[in-house]
Amino acid sequence: MPHPLPSGPEQRPIATVDIVIVTLSEGALRLGLQRRDREPHKGELALIGGYVRPEEDGDIEASARRILADKGRLTGLYLEQLRSFGGPSRDPRGWSISIAYLALVPEATLRAAETRGAPPFELIDPDRCPRLPFDHGRIIAAALQRLRSKASYSTLPAFLLGSQFTLPELKSVYETVMGTPLNDSAFRRKLMEMHILEEVEAKAAATAERKRPAQLYRLAKETLTEFDRTV
Amino acid sequence: MPHPLPSGPEQRPIATVDIVIVTLSEGALRLGLQRRDREPHKGELALIGGYVRPEEDGDIEASARRILADKGRLTGLYLEQLRSFGGPSRDPRGWSISIAYLALVPEATLRAAETRGAPPFELIDPDRCPRLPFDHGRIIAAALQRLRSKASYSTLPAFLLGSQFTLPELKSVYETVMGTPLNDSAFRRKLMEMHILEEVEAKAAATAERKRPAQLYRLAKETLTEFDRTV
Repeated sequence: MPHPLPSGPEQRPIATVDIVIVTLSEGALRLGLQRRDREPHKGELALIGGYVRPEEDGDIEASARRILADKGRLTGLYLEQLRSFGGPSRDPRGWSISIAYLALVPEATLRAAETRGAPPFELIDPDRCPRLPFDHGRIIAAALQRLRSKASYSTLPAFLLGSQFTLPELKSVYETVMGTPLNDSAFRRKLMEMHILEEVEAKAAATAERKRPAQLYRLAKETLTEFDRTV
Repeated sequence: MPHPLPSGPEQRPIATVDIVIVTLSEGALRLGLQRRDREPHKGELALIGGYVRPEEDGDIEASARRILADKGRLTGLYLEQLRSFGGPSRDPRGWSISIAYLALVPEATLRAAETRGAPPFELIDPDRCPRLPFDHGRIIAAALQRLRSKASYSTLPAFLLGSQFTLPELKSVYETVMGTPLNDSAFRRKLMEMHILEEVEAKAAATAERKRPAQLYRLAKETLTEFDRTV
């Protein structure tokens, strides 16, 4: 059955990018959502997203980074592409594709973006998320599944922290993402064996919980490292 | 910086689907490629692919299944979406997005499709794959990475076999995909503990290597099962 070739623009679906911003607030995972500033669904909480712009974007990740900069005043984030969602009814404007990304962002980075003019990020508990427009609920479910399934064998959770952190802070974020307590010495040993951390010269100041200054670390490379699964 | 909304069709990228067909031939992983029947790159070996058709397809997986049926005479396959690739130069027709899928297909299913009129599938060693058009080499790399990384904790490799198989056949396909020999009794024990296999009433006939008929199994559910990683 030969079909006519639908390469003409009039037969093309709408192509968009949506980014699931995940942050850590008071030790708990939170979604960073914004209220939409235009129709459809104007005023509703939703993922940050926008169109792929062939005239501007070098690739799909460039679309995501442009949207994050324009609408969220966010640059230099760690981004991971999830999967694409598409169909006739997910967007009232027509048959559309959304290429979904996961962005892990420290809360301080979101607050700094707001001081540079970004509309407020509302931090929502993913387990108590209201019904969202489009299929954003489904996209968020895919993002959380990716984050949790990769946590145990990669440095992914570390991107929820700032550039420098103590080992107890890092352990805590892994525990939060994985939803399970980790053995302290096994966690330290695994990290040290993997050579993914570098000591930072400065130390974290003493606090009420921490009587002495603590050693600070950073990721040896600010890219995602997958742990050797056989370790 | 407000941008005009590029929801008009003239500003939309081309949207396509490409499917990486992986099969097992004489115990080795092979790509199932076809020669393109139209421009661009007419006559060259490439992934099976085509346009997303908003007027026909209910979602992106439906696009992939329609293309597999039309161009490959293949139906009912296990499909897994990989990621999407996009940019101005991957397709000479213009800025394009390809949503990539992995399909695991027994060799007998490919040969049966050819008898129903599918153009020949050429089985190519992924380690000796010629330079392919578009960015199909990059898409194939993503497919093989997904297959290998999921092999050790899911039933994914089983889809390379027919609907019924012996335990040694199943172990062999895991070893091929993972590229490492597996311990016989540990493999059997893990499979039996996971309750993912059902015994089939028929038995596999004796062969030169196998003096007695062997028990045949099938997947308890013909869907992807992720093994409990803690086992």
